[in-house]
Amino acid sequence: MSPAPHLLTLLSDFGLQDPYVGVLKGVIATVAPAVTVIDLSHELPPHNLLAAHFCLRSAIPYFPPGTVHVAVVDPGVGSGRRAIALQIESGVLVGPDNGIFSAFLEQVSAAVALDRPEFWRTGSLSATFHGRDLFAPVGAHLAAGVPLAELGTAIDPASLMRLELPPSCVQHIDRFGNLITTLASHEVAGHPWFVCAGGKVIPGGTTYSSVPEGHLLALVGSHGFVEIACNGSSAQQQLGLSWGDPITLKLSQT
Amino acid sequence: MSPAPHLLTLLSDFGLQDPYVGVLKGVIATVAPAVTVIDLSHELPPHNLLAAHFCLRSAIPYFPPGTVHVAVVDPGVGSGRRAIALQIESGVLVGPDNGIFSAFLEQVSAAVALDRPEFWRTGSLSATFHGRDLFAPVGAHLAAGVPLAELGTAIDPASLMRLELPPSCVQHIDRFGNLITTLASHEVAGHPWFVCAGGKVIPGGTTYSSVPEGHLLALVGSHGFVEIACNGSSAQQQLGLSWGDPITLKLSQT
Amino acid sequence: MSPAPHLLTLLSDFGLQDPYVGVLKGVIATVAPAVTVIDLSHELPPHNLLAAHFCLRSAIPYFPPGTVHVAVVDPGVGSGRRAIALQIESGVLVGPDNGIFSAFLEQVSAAVALDRPEFWRTGSLSATFHGRDLFAPVGAHLAAGVPLAELGTAIDPASLMRLELPPSCVQHIDRFGNLITTLASHEVAGHPWFVCAGGKVIPGGTTYSSVPEGHLLALVGSHGFVEIACNGSSAQQQLGLSWGDPITLKLSQT
Repeated sequence: MSPAPHLLTLLSDFGLQDPYVGVLKGVIATVAPAVTVIDLSHELPPHNLLAAHFCLRSAIPYFPPGTVHVAVVDPGVGSGRRAIALQIESGVLVGPDNGIFSAFLEQVSAAVALDRPEFWRTGSLSATFHGRDLFAPVGAHLAAGVPLAELGTAIDPASLMRLELPPSCVQHIDRFGNLITTLASHEVAGHPWFVCAGGKVIPGGTTYSSVPEGHLLALVGSHGFVEIACNGSSAQQQLGLSWGDPITLKLSQT
Repeated sequence: MSPAPHLLTLLSDFGLQDPYVGVLKGVIATVAPAVTVIDLSHELPPHNLLAAHFCLRSAIPYFPPGTVHVAVVDPGVGSGRRAIALQIESGVLVGPDNGIFSAFLEQVSAAVALDRPEFWRTGSLSATFHGRDLFAPVGAHLAAGVPLAELGTAIDPASLMRLELPPSCVQHIDRFGNLITTLASHEVAGHPWFVCAGGKVIPGGTTYSSVPEGHLLALVGSHGFVEIACNGSSAQQQLGLSWGDPITLKLSQT
Repeated sequence: MSPAPHLLTLLSDFGLQDPYVGVLKGVIATVAPAVTVIDLSHELPPHNLLAAHFCLRSAIPYFPPGTVHVAVVDPGVGSGRRAIALQIESGVLVGPDNGIFSAFLEQVSAAVALDRPEFWRTGSLSATFHGRDLFAPVGAHLAAGVPLAELGTAIDPASLMRLELPPSCVQHIDRFGNLITTLASHEVAGHPWFVCAGGKVIPGGTTYSSVPEGHLLALVGSHGFVEIACNGSSAQQQLGLSWGDPITLKLSQT
């Protein structure tokens, strides 16, 4: 076996039909030819910060130490939002400062604003494609071994943007229309429980096979969060809920 | 050129929108950083064992000797179905024992039940995501060089699950709605032939340009099987057929 | 870091649901195991030469020197169209001679017809899958270091097929329904400008935020071309235009 290559993951909302993901990979291969690129997803709903946040929080813990994660879900491109890189325990996060890294802010040990054009693709930026011009080349330099501190000016981690969410809400909707909530498994342990969502009361701890087809159920998914599903169809359609909509947990006192 | 990396292919029905494929790749990179991962497909119709079977039988013969193929189409996860690894002539197959490897059972020279938790991601399994917890890490260990026999208890190849199909049927429906049957090219050689499907008689050996738009035709596809297509639209929609539906071949005695 | 691997990009209209992209990658790994494969896209609209042309012209300039680009959008497979490889400044192009490489013809320094079966997968070709049988293995041999001139008979670059397009037209429609025209940024510099398309007059140099929702706008995109968009919906649907449809540019004399 050859030595382990340095890893870089990519997350975007560019879709797979157009040339934009190929452009990112060309830029990365030009800066750092020996880096291995892994796609987290490029099919996120466009401009959906919550979907990006869920995908990052779900996938990053499974990658080896030192992995560089580049995320380009960037509705504020061209506005004044900062471009940032964050050192966390398991690697480095690169992307816009718009809250998509909220799940990791507690473990940030160093943060920089990416303001050194010598590490960009060219000295200037396009108005709309900072993935190509800034995030991909900076990520590639990091994966090739450039230290974080060289890539920009140190900033206070307390100044980083954080997603503002209801205390318990829908944080992701998967391709089956299952609603993944922010309720963690430990919150529903030890008691019978229900969730109230979209005007309905849904029994918790159920399984697909325990409810008739077309009925709603709530269970703890493999990601460790409470998920609302519908046996045989889409819970999203049945409840009319979207990303960020509030959910209420009820614990029974038995 | 650097030495050839070890290869691992991935097949699933997870889709590309959610973080699950990224999770698999993170787990593999953690166990075996120098292994090259190639996607066969992650857009299979959910829980469709026939589509998984067709994708494996179509793609595996084109990979180099020693490739590890990990397939996670697993409607029975959480039930008693076994997790298996199979040594075949050209490599190793890893996945649930549910019939998706049926096309390769004749060439299995060794089979194990994957019952050694020291090769799993953690010592225990989640209820629903054995791809992450068992199949990806075991596949990565195999690609990194761990011998098959170390990963589990030897089982009798004759005990492996096999897909039960009508003798000739629809084994796959591609994204254009073409119906790929189990009829092999040699079965239609030497005689004029027809197929009967969905109550219609379709002339064989035709080409797209030999029938008017909207008409059905049957031809031998590049995969070596008889395929029913519709010039300019979907044969699936026109015939109302699905995976596993029977097809009849008629040979003319001329 | 290990030495840079040789790069090969893949572009096709095969989609990601069926096994065909996996087959291409197996064939490449068999011929050239140490080559790194990067997907440009496999979700191009089927048989759409203009979409393939746009994807190639948009992505290739971002790849490092020496990259091999294999493109399989091939409606003429099985007819007499030539299979070709072209040496350009930044690498090598491999695919059918049907115009998809038009953007690069000015820089072709050597061209061959791929007529040497010893570099194909087997000595003969299937009727419909030259991607598997010819383009993927030839591309892999090139990426592994075989010189272009060995792969076929030299042909005159002036004989290569070229896309015939109106002087200014729609060259691509992205997944949001934005119409990317062939008008380059320098053509609209220095004057107020408008585009006429689908019977409407659309003001140029506008931004999404400068027009009400549902209104059309024209701007220079990150790819360097004029793009017609619709704030909040699809310009394609609103204008009823398709690939290749003509567009008129009007410059104001102020």
